[in-house]
Amino acid sequence: MTDAIEQALGEIRFDADGLVPAIAQQHDTGEVLMMAWMNREAVRVTLAEGRACYWSRSRQVLWRKGETSGQVQQLHELRLDCDGDTVLLLVDQAGVACHTGRRSCFFRAWRGSAWATIAGPLIDPERLYPRQAK
Amino acid sequence: MTDAIEQALGEIRFDADGLVPAIAQQHDTGEVLMMAWMNREAVRVTLAEGRACYWSRSRQVLWRKGETSGQVQQLHELRLDCDGDTVLLLVDQAGVACHTGRRSCFFRAWRGSAWATIAGPLIDPERLYPRQAK
Repeated sequence: MTDAIEQALGEIRFDADGLVPAIAQQHDTGEVLMMAWMNREAVRVTLAEGRACYWSRSRQVLWRKGETSGQVQQLHELRLDCDGDTVLLLVDQAGVACHTGRRSCFFRAWRGSAWATIAGPLIDPERLYPRQAK
Repeated sequence: MTDAIEQALGEIRFDADGLVPAIAQQHDTGEVLMMAWMNREAVRVTLAEGRACYWSRSRQVLWRKGETSGQVQQLHELRLDCDGDTVLLLVDQAGVACHTGRRSCFFRAWRGSAWATIAGPLIDPERLYPRQAK
């Protein structure tokens, strides 16, 4: 298993910061849910655990999607593009992908002269990320 | 028109290199075709001309998708994610998106222990990018 994953990693071209962009797509509907970043360890964890794990650039930590919010992404398939520098994760998204409570992070559409909000929250963000008790 | 586009650009958070990742998705089937990069001018051209235009990081030039290969991406809608640092282009892809002649650049899938090629070329790459006559 580990050897196989090392082989998978060998084909991925990480950038100068050791990262690769990762697009998450709902496997059956085709909806693009979000874009995040992965380092080698995030890819390793994703393949080993069968759940999407990213690298948080702002917090500089591995980020198992859903670890706080419960909105887990079960991995269906990891795909790699022609030049090996972008990955596509086909996932089964539990609940919502976006921290705003929306299904997809791409909820703003340019409609001629303004950004239109084309989807509303399905879950109250307060429920996704409850504030710490004081 | 120009003012509106400037307003659109104002919501996009370009990175330190002045770039934003852009995911191209076939508008009706949902197929993720490719990932490329856009700078401010590429977004401007895309919105003004209604055709996908990217920034080639390797060649350091604007790259109107299809200008050499004829495989144009007609823009249906430009979407922006929650934190404004990734765009999603819903497009109508003429022919193929990938320089290998495949419909999508994501034609390699990790199947347990190896990368499997899950799609073949629809067009001979030689026909997409004919060599210069000597």
